Amino acid sequence: MNILFCSVGRRCELLKDFRKTLGDKVRIVVTDNSLYAPALAFADASYQVPLITDPTYIGIILDICKKEKINAVTTLIDPEISILADNRAKFEEIGVEVLAPYKETADLCFDKYEMFKYLSEKGINTVKTYGSFAEFHEDYKKNAISLPVFVKPRTGSGSVGARRVDTIELLEEVTATDPSLIIQELMTGKDMDADVYVDTITNEVIAIFSKKKISTTIGGANKTISFKDEALFDFVKEALKVFRFNGPLDMDLFYQDGKYYLSEINPRFGGAYLHAYGAGVDFPAFIYKNVHDKEKNEPVIGQYEEDVVMMMYDSVVIDSLANLKGRMQ
Amino acid sequence: MNILFCSVGRRCELLKDFRKTLGDKVRIVVTDNSLYAPALAFADASYQVPLITDPTYIGIILDICKKEKINAVTTLIDPEISILADNRAKFEEIGVEVLAPYKETADLCFDKYEMFKYLSEKGINTVKTYGSFAEFHEDYKKNAISLPVFVKPRTGSGSVGARRVDTIELLEEVTATDPSLIIQELMTGKDMDADVYVDTITNEVIAIFSKKKISTTIGGANKTISFKDEALFDFVKEALKVFRFNGPLDMDLFYQDGKYYLSEINPRFGGAYLHAYGAGVDFPAFIYKNVHDKEKNEPVIGQYEEDVVMMMYDSVVIDSLANLKGRMQ
Repeated sequence: MNILFCSVGRRCELLKDFRKTLGDKVRIVVTDNSLYAPALAFADASYQVPLITDPTYIGIILDICKKEKINAVTTLIDPEISILADNRAKFEEIGVEVLAPYKETADLCFDKYEMFKYLSEKGINTVKTYGSFAEFHEDYKKNAISLPVFVKPRTGSGSVGARRVDTIELLEEVTATDPSLIIQELMTGKDMDADVYVDTITNEVIAIFSKKKISTTIGGANKTISFKDEALFDFVKEALKVFRFNGPLDMDLFYQDGKYYLSEINPRFGGAYLHAYGAGVDFPAFIYKNVHDKEKNEPVIGQYEEDVVMMMYDSVVIDSLANLKGRMQ
Repeated sequence: MNILFCSVGRRCELLKDFRKTLGDKVRIVVTDNSLYAPALAFADASYQVPLITDPTYIGIILDICKKEKINAVTTLIDPEISILADNRAKFEEIGVEVLAPYKETADLCFDKYEMFKYLSEKGINTVKTYGSFAEFHEDYKKNAISLPVFVKPRTGSGSVGARRVDTIELLEEVTATDPSLIIQELMTGKDMDADVYVDTITNEVIAIFSKKKISTTIGGANKTISFKDEALFDFVKEALKVFRFNGPLDMDLFYQDGKYYLSEINPRFGGAYLHAYGAGVDFPAFIYKNVHDKEKNEPVIGQYEEDVVMMMYDSVVIDSLANLKGRMQ
């Protein structure tokens, strides 16, 4: 199987996991805009490509797919997901499986306010969200929402630009300064997440791995522990029925007052998917079965151990500038 | 050689570098307050210890040294450096080399304002620093300093709490809110750093490895490239003459208007020492020669290649909670 990871960046361990499962059954091709993406060191072939906003970008990716006889393509950055989804037909024409959601779902995942409206309409528990200060203020005057709240960019990635706001004056000011911010109810429950695989043949959820943060005094350290809860699995399966995903995704959830709430979906390999892999939930094997064998995967939801701990640390790739330049196509 | 790393935390790659150089010639013993320190996975023996502020702390560390027949001790966190320095005599009594500076130097490195005063007195180029708003305001009224400036905690680690301030009103407000802040001239030159080894037998600087940041559009990515400059080596050697270091340290520098300026010294293995090691500047070998062979190291200043690139990425340790608990003493 030949797989293309677009915008591979720092995802070295993910590539190592593919190699560990698939050995020489996989050829790993990667792209990045930068020479200095460390994950290039773990690929079989590396291509330096323009920024994803460049008009020539998608043509270049399609050319790489043809040249490398790629069987499946995915991306590791959020703003590229819709680009892959928009061009699904062009990839399929040349026999490439697009491991990204279908267009409507990709667009919803990228826009947190549209996602809120869609989930509300479908009756799926989610975090109360306002698209503007005016809209928030209406509810605030009616005591339908209270401070503090959480603001974050409507289309941002992860927690970039997200912060708590405590007063109505400050909220008016920050939203006036940056109209891209949405306003969310402050959730006080536990946050957790789930790595999910949606089979590309049956479009069924076949794997869910859930983990929560370990409370720690060490700032910024990313440590998680696996757990299982049938209610969480049921909530995830139910929520995903209203979307069209294809392959790996990562969901952020809250658990509050005995209920799960969907916060965000990142429809790609999550940054902490490594935890699921280390606990035996093997997405590379699922992809191989779907893409190479053209067979469906049997569901393995919850088939992992509880209390498996993941602890992140900094590792490095070190090489000469000459070698970094030499390996780029 | 038996070496003890206190507060080992996430420094997995550093332990791997020791193992790579020394193989089974080293026994690596580590401590941490948390079960969840990933570097425990790379040690020969791990001890869970109280917080460094606990009155029983140093006694426990000394007991571990006796039990494990430790030859050298060091710490990987800043607030512990003075604790090791304060207790140097107790460690030496039981034959343990303390890879940390002598007391006066340790105290200076921890307090950025005292460091500024000391460097100024000794005529070493440094970044203009004020201990209070009143002091800054005196110079500001005389046009001896201008805005913007940089504020940071007087005793903080790395860049935690450091930020740029643009107006005198905001500066007065932030320093009133947090009197622990110092005020520094905003340096516009390039920042860079140097990993330095001070021989424990001769007290001479025997290795300097300098690197600068690679400009990059990828947020938060830590990428550096090695370079050499005799003027930098001379500046570092000259600056270090007024201190009493012992073993590894990391210096932050600015290069502006054709001159080097000393910004901070972290008298321990720097977080990016891995780059120096990868470029062949082998501190574990120097420590072994000093501590095990009881011989001095010959200077190797500048003996490395230029344009060696280091790129950081996230790696993980994954294990069951039962195993994590089981390995702790």
